[in-house]
Amino acid sequence: MTALPSPTDDHRWLAMAAALSARGRPLSAPNPAVGCVIVRENRVVARGWTQPGGRPHAEAMALASAGPAACGATIYVSLEPCAHASTRGPACADLVAAAAPARVVVGCYDPDPRTAGAGIARLRAAGIAVDLVPHATCAQALAGFLLRTQEGRPHVTLKLALSLDGMIALANGQSQWITGPQARAHCHAERARADAILVGGGTLRADAPRLDVRLPGLEARSPARWVLTRGAAPEGWQAVADITAPGAFGQTQWLFVEGGAGAAATFLRADRVDRLLLYRAPILLGPGLAAVGDLGLETLAPAHGRWALVEERQLGSDTLSVYDRHR
Amino acid sequence: MTALPSPTDDHRWLAMAAALSARGRPLSAPNPAVGCVIVRENRVVARGWTQPGGRPHAEAMALASAGPAACGATIYVSLEPCAHASTRGPACADLVAAAAPARVVVGCYDPDPRTAGAGIARLRAAGIAVDLVPHATCAQALAGFLLRTQEGRPHVTLKLALSLDGMIALANGQSQWITGPQARAHCHAERARADAILVGGGTLRADAPRLDVRLPGLEARSPARWVLTRGAAPEGWQAVADITAPGAFGQTQWLFVEGGAGAAATFLRADRVDRLLLYRAPILLGPGLAAVGDLGLETLAPAHGRWALVEERQLGSDTLSVYDRHR
Ligand SMILES: NC(=O)c1ccc[n+]([C@@H]2O[C@H](COP(=O)([O-])OP(=O)(O)OC[C@H]3O[C@@H](n4cnc5c(N)ncnc54)[C@H](OP(=O)(O)O)[C@@H]3O)[C@@H](O)[C@H]2O)c1
Ligand SMILES: NC(=O)c1ccc[n+]([C@@H]2O[C@H](COP(=O)([O-])OP(=O)(O)OC[C@H]3O[C@@H](n4cnc5c(N)ncnc54)[C@H](OP(=O)(O)O)[C@@H]3O)[C@@H](O)[C@H]2O)c1
Repeated sequence: MTALPSPTDDHRWLAMAAALSARGRPLSAPNPAVGCVIVRENRVVARGWTQPGGRPHAEAMALASAGPAACGATIYVSLEPCAHASTRGPACADLVAAAAPARVVVGCYDPDPRTAGAGIARLRAAGIAVDLVPHATCAQALAGFLLRTQEGRPHVTLKLALSLDGMIALANGQSQWITGPQARAHCHAERARADAILVGGGTLRADAPRLDVRLPGLEARSPARWVLTRGAAPEGWQAVADITAPGAFGQTQWLFVEGGAGAAATFLRADRVDRLLLYRAPILLGPGLAAVGDLGLETLAPAHGRWALVEERQLGSDTLSVYDRHR
Repeated sequence: MTALPSPTDDHRWLAMAAALSARGRPLSAPNPAVGCVIVRENRVVARGWTQPGGRPHAEAMALASAGPAACGATIYVSLEPCAHASTRGPACADLVAAAAPARVVVGCYDPDPRTAGAGIARLRAAGIAVDLVPHATCAQALAGFLLRTQEGRPHVTLKLALSLDGMIALANGQSQWITGPQARAHCHAERARADAILVGGGTLRADAPRLDVRLPGLEARSPARWVLTRGAAPEGWQAVADITAPGAFGQTQWLFVEGGAGAAATFLRADRVDRLLLYRAPILLGPGLAAVGDLGLETLAPAHGRWALVEERQLGSDTLSVYDRHR
């Protein structure tokens, strides 16, 4: 006798699908990075995630790996299967239906107007049981795609490397190094998860940063480079002046903002920071360059209630604290 | 058959003695807060700690509670038993010897010139086995006493209540409140563990802080109030101008410095901060009052290698991080 999956199992398998989807980030661009797990009798029979360039999709990868074992199995997928065929492949809803699984569990509704419920409807029309189980980890893993599709903007991470007293450089400008090698390597790994990276014009002029990923094997993952400026961008960079203009960052899903204080303040004032990555070194510096420019606060009240600590870890002697914007 | 205590047992019982000693802090002043555990066959038969005003000592309390059970037992004490009689009681070394324990284990040598090894010597002369087992937790619990005795200065904790970007107030001076009620209550409990509390003249003039302990039942534990100033102290306060002058803080063992930026910098520049308590609220403020005044740093190198994270905990939505000075 086959044990029926419990809601707890569903959540666990969706969490696995979300974790697998991270393997597609960010090279699945411009498509969302999706993860898929095919399960029979509580065992994984196949896994898949969106491939570089966006095809094959996660479901197609998992179904190809499962072969006939998909028939009668449960398919967990972090995002609703797509309902639109493309020259690069059939619609996943059709592919999944053809494999005749017993059940499909979807972790997140797809707001793309070409799918938007049509993927689930098509599976149900084919006689397949489908459960939409909204799953926070799936939504988090798709945040860049969801924000781009629904709000026309990328998910924004603001990274700051700080002293205990909140400085990003001495008064004389020296900022190399505040944090140690483990924190800097971690930051490079975070860059490799972004489509695009941005600094302010001040930082570009002061530091001429390369903003590439200097981790062995990940050099090809260096994201597109953006500069916040009212002027022109140097060669190899894109310029943005109004970060709130719809579509200002094109197809970008994951934007990584590395400062300086002016750029940080511009994103914060516009309430366009979704995640803070604070790399904090155990040093005190006294007055120097503060991390964040003027936020226009006249009272403390509006500063409160915005940020929730979601992760903290040691990186050598530095501490990484991750905060997500309450929304 | 009685199991012989292992070195691991010794460390565990000394840790208990150190933990008990905290009950005497700071009301044992001007005496050190000491803890004592009497153990037979791996069971506690009595405990004691230094009483308010400094007498009875921890050993006297534990021996009185143990009665004849101390004979043949092992006595663990966080600090070497004193060798000097006073009008307020006999020397603990004599009291302990008279109880005829099988063994005495001492967690910390007493640098007070009236003891300084004489306590241990007197016990050994009485035929009692004595082991000095230097124990970091005992030394930490006695740090205020050890620094006063050996360096003529108190142990200094610098407390800062900060935003994520290191500000202690908005540019317009507003600082109530950065941290929430749990963090403020914790800070009051820390005040209650200090003999003395200090702010700079700027904070005194700006905020006229009461600096008392406003926790139910602990009101009587409000420490002596000091102000760092080149001027005079108001009534009920003591003034200090040169914090490095020998004996500047008299008999103070535990000094709690609550800012502002100028006072923080004065203690940090003199390398007189032993512990940092950072209460950090999950808010960003932008340029305002920075936590720490000028430290005279020209390069980053000397800022590194000074602070070790020893504790971190959540207090409501705030984070407390405790750093100790590497020495
Ligand atoms: N330790 C660290 O983690 C770290 C990281 C980054 C930077 N830094 C340091 O920070 C310093 C630079 O900081 P910064 O605050 O002076 O400069 P910044 O934030 O890098 O750049 C400020 C510039 O951004 C543009 N900008 C800002 N707001 C804008 C808006 N609303 N619309 C259009 N453009 C806008 C303007 O560029 P244009 O003038 O070109 O129009 C402005 O001059 C450098 O010393 C750098 O070394 C340290
Ligand atoms: N959020 C928080 O946690 C917090 C905590 C404390 C303070 N604050 C804020 O911080 C501000 C005050 O900070 P502040 O930096 O202006 O003042 P401060 O540090 O409280 O006091 C500076 C004063 O300390 C004395 N001083 C400093 N160094 C000295 C030295 N080497 N020798 C002798 N005296 C010395 C001088 O006093 P004289 O001028 O009297 O000689 C100097 O004016 C206030 O706005 C207060 O509200 C916030």
